[in-house]
Amino acid sequence: MNSNPSKVRETGLILDPKYGPDGLITAVVTDAADGKVLMLAHMNAEALGLTIDTGVAHFWSRSRNRLWKKGETSGHILSVEDIRIDCDQDAIWIIARPAGPACHTGEVSCFYRRVTAAGLERVDD
Amino acid sequence: MNSNPSKVRETGLILDPKYGPDGLITAVVTDAADGKVLMLAHMNAEALGLTIDTGVAHFWSRSRNRLWKKGETSGHILSVEDIRIDCDQDAIWIIARPAGPACHTGEVSCFYRRVTAAGLERVDD
Repeated sequence: MNSNPSKVRETGLILDPKYGPDGLITAVVTDAADGKVLMLAHMNAEALGLTIDTGVAHFWSRSRNRLWKKGETSGHILSVEDIRIDCDQDAIWIIARPAGPACHTGEVSCFYRRVTAAGLERVDD
Repeated sequence: MNSNPSKVRETGLILDPKYGPDGLITAVVTDAADGKVLMLAHMNAEALGLTIDTGVAHFWSRSRNRLWKKGETSGHILSVEDIRIDCDQDAIWIIARPAGPACHTGEVSCFYRRVTAAGLERVDD
């Protein structure tokens, strides 16, 4: 039995998310179909709990300062296939099937621009 | 020409990262081979610039409070294949070929545990 709290968190099997001072943890969402990163957002404990319990991704909206069921308005919900947590339990990876574009701009993924030394360029793949 | 600064950032082709109050932007790294999320870390402007210029992922280590070339000690560098930025330019997606395990625990990915309602379970895929 390892009693070092940091080691327990890093290698144990107890869910113990390390929320930031704002009570949030970063969550990255990828598309189960092709592995593309769709979006990055934040969860508080309630959002993570609802995501685990309902199988639909919930976040904390920092701009609106409230719980946010992704797709609550657009219908573009994220059906969760798998949830992972990283070594130090301060980041969540959601593998999901999106019901529509994940980005509020209408793009499939929020990451629709490539960074190059010369600036950004649109990516359509 | 759209003169709304937020719109320009979201749809334009000028790199204008929205660093947090700590001068950092979140960066998620996926494996170019299979789309798996390998790790999540943070970059300051210097780390992002070096990543763009050298093709090797650099971050800002919050624990050591210094620039961090991933793999500088272990040799497990991340060779960058593509860099993306999200709509509001506050997150970076690095698509990379890892030279070895990305996680300091020796795991291929930091996200090696599944979150379930009953706790965590190890994932080997």
